[in-house]
Amino acid sequence: MRLCRFEVGGTPRWGVIEGDLVTPLAAPPWDEVRKIGGATPLAAARLLPPCEPSKIVAVGLNYRAHAAEMGKELPEEPLLFLKAPSSLLPPGGAVVLPRQSAKVEHEGELALVIGRAATRINAGNALDYVLGYTCLDDVTARDIQRREKVYARAKGFDTFCPVGPWLETEIADPQALGLELRVNGAVRQRGSTGDMIFPVAEVIAFISHIMTLFPGDLITTGTPPGVGPLTSGDAVEVEIAGIGTLRHSVA
Amino acid sequence: MRLCRFEVGGTPRWGVIEGDLVTPLAAPPWDEVRKIGGATPLAAARLLPPCEPSKIVAVGLNYRAHAAEMGKELPEEPLLFLKAPSSLLPPGGAVVLPRQSAKVEHEGELALVIGRAATRINAGNALDYVLGYTCLDDVTARDIQRREKVYARAKGFDTFCPVGPWLETEIADPQALGLELRVNGAVRQRGSTGDMIFPVAEVIAFISHIMTLFPGDLITTGTPPGVGPLTSGDAVEVEIAGIGTLRHSVA
Repeated sequence: MRLCRFEVGGTPRWGVIEGDLVTPLAAPPWDEVRKIGGATPLAAARLLPPCEPSKIVAVGLNYRAHAAEMGKELPEEPLLFLKAPSSLLPPGGAVVLPRQSAKVEHEGELALVIGRAATRINAGNALDYVLGYTCLDDVTARDIQRREKVYARAKGFDTFCPVGPWLETEIADPQALGLELRVNGAVRQRGSTGDMIFPVAEVIAFISHIMTLFPGDLITTGTPPGVGPLTSGDAVEVEIAGIGTLRHSVA
Repeated sequence: MRLCRFEVGGTPRWGVIEGDLVTPLAAPPWDEVRKIGGATPLAAARLLPPCEPSKIVAVGLNYRAHAAEMGKELPEEPLLFLKAPSSLLPPGGAVVLPRQSAKVEHEGELALVIGRAATRINAGNALDYVLGYTCLDDVTARDIQRREKVYARAKGFDTFCPVGPWLETEIADPQALGLELRVNGAVRQRGSTGDMIFPVAEVIAFISHIMTLFPGDLITTGTPPGVGPLTSGDAVEVEIAGIGTLRHSVA
C-alpha cells in the first residue's frame, strides 16, 4: 500500500494512493486506513512530506564505502544525529542553497516512518513498528560539517530534508533494495541497502533504547558512497527499487 | 507574567500563574493571554514543560569558562545542536540514568520559548520573538559525548531535558541574570548570563538564518562552568534570578 500526505483545498491530509488516484483518509493511518471523500488524480495532487515527525533521527556512516570516502573509521555503534523538522521539503520542492555554505552535497537514503510508539524494543520485531518506507536526501553543508564536527547546523537548514514521494508499506526485506541518486540524469550514487553496517531493524531498536519513538517520527538510515556537490538549477532524483522516485530541484 | 503548562483533569493546558493560583488559558498564548475557567492552587497543579517545541535548539560552549573546563577553543560562531523533544521532563520529574553511560552530568542553563515564527531576523529585534524565559538542565552523558563528538545521543536520552517550572515573560535584560545549579543543596554551578559569548538576541538571530523558528520552539543558551556528575537519588535545583527554580531528581 502507498500512503501519502497531500493538500486537499489547502488542508494537509493523509491519503492512500491506488493506481493514478489518491483518496484522503479520515485520520492518520497509525491504527487503520479509513478512506473519506472522493479520489483525486495523483498528478493533480500537491504531495507533502509523508510524515509529521516529532523528531528526525539520522544515522551517519552506515555504509562501509561511504565511511571510507569520508575518511572515517567504521562506527562500532550507530552514530546518531538529528535533523530539524523545519528542514522538511515536500516532493518536487527546491533545496535552497544557503549563503553560509560554499559546498552543499546530496546524500540519497532509505528512510522510514514509525507507526507505533516504541521504547526499548528488540531488533527482532522492530520492523513491526514501521509504518512505511520512503526516499530521502540528507542534504548537507559539507564545509560547515567538517568545520563544526556536530551536524545540527550543517544538516539543518530549511529545505535540507527532501522526503517522499510516499510511504510504501509492503517492503518484504528493507536490506535488499537498490538505491540510486541522479543529478540531471547522471548517476552519482548507486548502492544496495544490503551494504548497511547496521540494518534497519537494529537502527530502530538502538534508537528506541535512547529516545522513545512516536508515530510519525522519521528515521533515515545513512547514505551509500558517491556523495557530491549540488549547484543551482540541478534536478535531483532519489530512486529506491520497490518504493519510487523522489524528485527535487536546487535553487 | 508567568505562563505555564499544566494538567487540568488529565488534559494539558496552558495557564497563567498569579500569586499562588494558576488559571487555564483558552488557547496557546502566542497572540493573546485569555483566561478560561477557574483558578487552581499552584501547589495542587501538576506542571508540565512550559512548551511544546517542534525542535529544541541548544548552543554549546557559550560561556568562556565552561569552554575552558571542557578543554575546547572558543567558537567563532554559535555551535548548535538539537535535543530530541522526547527528552523533555516536567518540573519535579526524575532524570533516569541510562545503562549505556557511566558519567551523566548536569548543565544548568537559561532557556527561552519562541512566541512568533522567525526566519532570518536581526539580533536588534530578536528578543521581540521570545514568549518567555525559563530554567533548563541540559543533561549530558559525558562519556558518550566525548566518544562520539556528535551530541544527539549523549544529550537525547528520555528525561534528559528537565525544563521549567514556568515562563517569565518580563525579563528586562536576559544578559543580567544570576544562575545557580545546586545538587543536594550544594552549589555546583554559579554564573551570570552576562558572561555568555553570544548573547540571547544574537543566538536567536543566528539560528533563524538557518532554521525557521516556530511558536513553542525551545532554545537553550549554554551552561556556565561547574558541570559535574549526577548520581541516583540526587536532588537538583536550577535557579535563575527573576525567573524561579526548576527542581528535578535523579533515578
